[in-house]
Amino acid sequence: MSLSIGVLGYRFMGKAHANALARLPMFFPDAPDVERSVLVGRDESALESAAEELGFASTATDWADVVDDVDVFYNLGPNHVHAEPSIAALEAGTPVFCEKPLAPTLEGAEEMAAAADAAGSDVPAGCAFNYRFVPAIRYAKNLLEAGELGEIHHVRGRYLQDWLVDPEAPWSWRNDAELAGSGALGDLGSHTLDLAQFLVGDDDLAGDIERINGHCQTFVEERPVEGEDETRPVTVDDAYTAQAEFANGAVGSFEASRFATGHKNDHTIEIHGSKGSLKFSLERLNELELLREDNRGYETILVTDEDDPYLDHWWPPGHVIGWEHTFVHENYEFLSAVANGDEFAPSFEDGLAVQRLLEAVERSDEQGSWVNV
Amino acid sequence: MSLSIGVLGYRFMGKAHANALARLPMFFPDAPDVERSVLVGRDESALESAAEELGFASTATDWADVVDDVDVFYNLGPNHVHAEPSIAALEAGTPVFCEKPLAPTLEGAEEMAAAADAAGSDVPAGCAFNYRFVPAIRYAKNLLEAGELGEIHHVRGRYLQDWLVDPEAPWSWRNDAELAGSGALGDLGSHTLDLAQFLVGDDDLAGDIERINGHCQTFVEERPVEGEDETRPVTVDDAYTAQAEFANGAVGSFEASRFATGHKNDHTIEIHGSKGSLKFSLERLNELELLREDNRGYETILVTDEDDPYLDHWWPPGHVIGWEHTFVHENYEFLSAVANGDEFAPSFEDGLAVQRLLEAVERSDEQGSWVNV
Amino acid sequence: MSLSIGVLGYRFMGKAHANALARLPMFFPDAPDVERSVLVGRDESALESAAEELGFASTATDWADVVDDVDVFYNLGPNHVHAEPSIAALEAGTPVFCEKPLAPTLEGAEEMAAAADAAGSDVPAGCAFNYRFVPAIRYAKNLLEAGELGEIHHVRGRYLQDWLVDPEAPWSWRNDAELAGSGALGDLGSHTLDLAQFLVGDDDLAGDIERINGHCQTFVEERPVEGEDETRPVTVDDAYTAQAEFANGAVGSFEASRFATGHKNDHTIEIHGSKGSLKFSLERLNELELLREDNRGYETILVTDEDDPYLDHWWPPGHVIGWEHTFVHENYEFLSAVANGDEFAPSFEDGLAVQRLLEAVERSDEQGSWVNV
Amino acid sequence: MSLSIGVLGYRFMGKAHANALARLPMFFPDAPDVERSVLVGRDESALESAAEELGFASTATDWADVVDDVDVFYNLGPNHVHAEPSIAALEAGTPVFCEKPLAPTLEGAEEMAAAADAAGSDVPAGCAFNYRFVPAIRYAKNLLEAGELGEIHHVRGRYLQDWLVDPEAPWSWRNDAELAGSGALGDLGSHTLDLAQFLVGDDDLAGDIERINGHCQTFVEERPVEGEDETRPVTVDDAYTAQAEFANGAVGSFEASRFATGHKNDHTIEIHGSKGSLKFSLERLNELELLREDNRGYETILVTDEDDPYLDHWWPPGHVIGWEHTFVHENYEFLSAVANGDEFAPSFEDGLAVQRLLEAVERSDEQGSWVNV
Repeated sequence: MSLSIGVLGYRFMGKAHANALARLPMFFPDAPDVERSVLVGRDESALESAAEELGFASTATDWADVVDDVDVFYNLGPNHVHAEPSIAALEAGTPVFCEKPLAPTLEGAEEMAAAADAAGSDVPAGCAFNYRFVPAIRYAKNLLEAGELGEIHHVRGRYLQDWLVDPEAPWSWRNDAELAGSGALGDLGSHTLDLAQFLVGDDDLAGDIERINGHCQTFVEERPVEGEDETRPVTVDDAYTAQAEFANGAVGSFEASRFATGHKNDHTIEIHGSKGSLKFSLERLNELELLREDNRGYETILVTDEDDPYLDHWWPPGHVIGWEHTFVHENYEFLSAVANGDEFAPSFEDGLAVQRLLEAVERSDEQGSWVNV
Repeated sequence: MSLSIGVLGYRFMGKAHANALARLPMFFPDAPDVERSVLVGRDESALESAAEELGFASTATDWADVVDDVDVFYNLGPNHVHAEPSIAALEAGTPVFCEKPLAPTLEGAEEMAAAADAAGSDVPAGCAFNYRFVPAIRYAKNLLEAGELGEIHHVRGRYLQDWLVDPEAPWSWRNDAELAGSGALGDLGSHTLDLAQFLVGDDDLAGDIERINGHCQTFVEERPVEGEDETRPVTVDDAYTAQAEFANGAVGSFEASRFATGHKNDHTIEIHGSKGSLKFSLERLNELELLREDNRGYETILVTDEDDPYLDHWWPPGHVIGWEHTFVHENYEFLSAVANGDEFAPSFEDGLAVQRLLEAVERSDEQGSWVNV
Repeated sequence: MSLSIGVLGYRFMGKAHANALARLPMFFPDAPDVERSVLVGRDESALESAAEELGFASTATDWADVVDDVDVFYNLGPNHVHAEPSIAALEAGTPVFCEKPLAPTLEGAEEMAAAADAAGSDVPAGCAFNYRFVPAIRYAKNLLEAGELGEIHHVRGRYLQDWLVDPEAPWSWRNDAELAGSGALGDLGSHTLDLAQFLVGDDDLAGDIERINGHCQTFVEERPVEGEDETRPVTVDDAYTAQAEFANGAVGSFEASRFATGHKNDHTIEIHGSKGSLKFSLERLNELELLREDNRGYETILVTDEDDPYLDHWWPPGHVIGWEHTFVHENYEFLSAVANGDEFAPSFEDGLAVQRLLEAVERSDEQGSWVNV
Repeated sequence: MSLSIGVLGYRFMGKAHANALARLPMFFPDAPDVERSVLVGRDESALESAAEELGFASTATDWADVVDDVDVFYNLGPNHVHAEPSIAALEAGTPVFCEKPLAPTLEGAEEMAAAADAAGSDVPAGCAFNYRFVPAIRYAKNLLEAGELGEIHHVRGRYLQDWLVDPEAPWSWRNDAELAGSGALGDLGSHTLDLAQFLVGDDDLAGDIERINGHCQTFVEERPVEGEDETRPVTVDDAYTAQAEFANGAVGSFEASRFATGHKNDHTIEIHGSKGSLKFSLERLNELELLREDNRGYETILVTDEDDPYLDHWWPPGHVIGWEHTFVHENYEFLSAVANGDEFAPSFEDGLAVQRLLEAVERSDEQGSWVNV
């Protein structure tokens, strides 16, 4: 038996997931069989051509026709179309895999999580925080869980890009609060905040973020619309910073920007514990820098050995993998959960937890004071 | 029309190329259509299972039945089976893509190059030096060709692995002179020497290597046979070094080892010219370190921008690719050449040029003196 | 004529400045001649032995006997003895060079700055923020002033140490609010905040920090007293974070800790502007990482060329200098200002500006909200 | 009692040693007292001014007047004046500290070593290979001696500079075979070869270099004389490479150049053993990269802890030292040996061992074949 998949969205994320699906049989032979059944979009001509490129059997322009008809529904559209189709799918008992952040608003995310809850635990609802599936991150998680870094004192995360530093860079839905929710905060910061809680959220380590205090900044207030003689307002943040306190008193320091000149996709997370420290950077995603208890400095570990997470599926040691491989791993885990009726993490509940933090950052920025989460 | 492909070899290289073939339609839609038609091997049961995993329509245990029957023949077997099937295919007018090094001996490589020559320029015969297809290497090549590094004075290359440092690591065909030709020299050094000549071989830069002086060393003289109570002699080098002189007087310094503790797949090339310098390391294959004429230090360039070589086919800037992508690029180029009757480089002639260097290193090691190439 | 110098404090800072004074004649022959005249301290026996080691002609146990008697007074004692002797010296018309932070409290710093103001511009009162005198920092400052990074959007600074991560590490004056003012904030953060304003404080760049929002954390509440069977409370922060807004809207993100396992003296500052970016790290103080406008990545510049700041006084290119050299540079500049009756920066006014930020961080932490500076 | 020191040479090396002598009392209080008594040179006016800058009590234009008159003789002149004054001093029973390489020719070095031998073991004759006194190198030496890297398989050293890459860079004595002996080989390579034998020369590790095979290259055959309208021939190498075999079969790979564009003083040494590996680079001289037996990657160790070699004399952890500190350490060790009548290493015998390697490299380059050492 094969799982039929309907996918909403055929741009960047559509391609990343379609590629992941296409690669499962060769590298994860125990993954469930899948059919790229239906690709959903509005622009019929673009959709047709995408379906051919991405290997989908058919297309549809209305997601409502699809969510009940497929075995699994992937929601890879812009943030403002996350909620309605995902909820409809879940109400139809169809497992949903939705891109992050879960929704533009906390309310949307709450409704989605409620729908996931109502659908029951054998209908997985996953939120696609793909960086949890980087081998080096999984390896770090294992070290943390084994207590090798001790109690956690510091978590530092930042996500730097530079594609908006030019004030003439065109307006897009990512600059609009209605469509995107927030800017660098939701797009980039959601990844960082999820990773932070994923890595140190255990009560033995730091626990959850309990309060947070954020600052959002928009450097360029309006941007030209591509191909048109007008500008539109930028209603989201270009950058945010936040300081946070975890349950155990650990100090969090977070930041993201689309104005960090020279940085393309520089997502870094650093953790200091009582026994050790670690650093990870997405642009060198095969590496983990680890300070072990009995060592003196950070060790640069190439996380490509056969017994490293997911690496037995790929190539010999030292033959590095790329960004896209994280999608193969998360699709493997999600689809396995669907096939087995297992739970999957990151779930909609995890997505909602991040959304609460995003909302707390924005609220604290407005209020100028700390917000309890 | 679709090209039917027959592939000899289904282990590491078989999988790397099968994956590359499978990925072409989604990422290189202008590549010729291909069918993974026949997988060739000796062990029927392993072969069946590999054919299923790698997506081949059929299998064969005798390459002689295949080379005339397919549109393209891939020879991905151990070095000692490179010559005979490749020559047979070329004699049948079938384009051949053969793994490196071209053959265990110079004579074998010469016969293969002669067969390629006899087959004519519309029957491409490619030698799979995949590191020519790393975007950062292509980018470096473009800079060199544009004269941005000036005249070349130094080329330094090394390829470090550590999988034989344990004297109990088991014997394999790679330790046998009959089957492999040489050890670290042929397996790893062939890549380095090919890259060196690819990058600076133009007469304006350094020209070809004209003389070379090598040193081969075997640290462990015999190794246990896995699962058996015996040892077999190691008849190849565990490591080599070489110093070389290019046509323009530039100094080459080369090295490879399987005893470099802690290094998994560390292939590094460094070039100093009159106007600038560059460094590349395979374990960070998305990066190039470049010293430009008007700068003071090396600039760490993430070669993932849209206008970087091959990158428009993949992901947005900063979303790094992996080792396997080099196979996609080389398969794209080779199959395009086949479809269009174009020449392809690296050719068997290029493979022969490297083989001449390998043989010169070994001969100079035996003689204890320089050898003209 | 030679300047007689009286120095209060003979431990770490005493030695750093005594060494600097001793090295001036050989490396900065145009510096004023100085005599290490009087070393001031309370413990006579330790003082005698320090005076001999550090090359002082005499000793005194009461600073009041010294401040009027020497040409220059150096106040290198703990923070709580900064104000009174410095003010007395200034009232006597004696130039003062005082270690940072200027005082444990804002009031103390205000009084000191007022005394400096009253003493007049020909009586220099310097605050020893030595990292302004790192060649790479001066080089960065020149680039920033020349507009090479454009308008500033981000300033990120952190100062990480780990000497308190062990809860059994002994109590010292640095853990006491009365004696030290604050903890990591004042000791480490004062350096970072001074550097930030030094580098981007020009109105063309980012201007001053206008509002700030800090968070202070103490991980270990009491510590053992060395050699005694008791503990004392830790009344200062072990770590702080702060987010800030500069006059032009640039976003600041600051942090320091004494609990960053594995980091010894890791002071890092990073700046992103509209045209370029830079990074500096104290543990590699001879290097600056610079992203220039027409480049693609950070260039690692070894700031040791003859025309780099202060470098013509030292060694040929590539012969790196150390941490202590920053003291030679600042002593050279301060004493030259004294001899010439020139102004010196960083002045007490600059020290006060930092103190205002330290106080604002603490106040915002208590209030849980932003504080205007 | 104080040791009077006579120093021949007042340029770069004269200043480096004079500074070291001046710093001993404050940082190495147990070092013997020394007087900078006589500075020796030919150009009286330059000499006077240097003596004042470097703190010498008197000057002399004939070393013959000095070598018998002082307690210690430092020979810091160009290579061609190393032998005669050093031998005269030793014949007078005066300990000698001579810059490296020991002499321009093997014969000169042999005579010097013979004179040192004749002077007896209580008259130390030291060869100033200062990089033996880098704390990170000493720390590495201790690890190697403790067997932490196991048996040695590879030693790789290179020393890269770029000050001759411009063909118009002026001629100096360093370009002349009579005056300098050799070029990059003797000036830079001598450091590398000494370090290699210092670090792994023990029989348990790799033993001495037993045979070597070198290649010397001169890229620019003549250079302009500064201030004159003529050129002079370059009769030394601009760059060398060498491959070597140690007693235990370990493979050596060595290189130096004055044409490595962008590299100022980049001296790197890398060692791979059966249990671990290490890397050191002079431009980051406070760091050692160490792969330990139970670790997976290189650990970047900041060798500035209190119990690291020589570090208890300097600053707290993380407060880095510079290139010049290596001279303080070697002067401390050499003068302590003089005061105590102890042996000092590196000795003239060690200098001669390096000279034998330099000569072997040149001879093998002429012969085109390996040379036994």
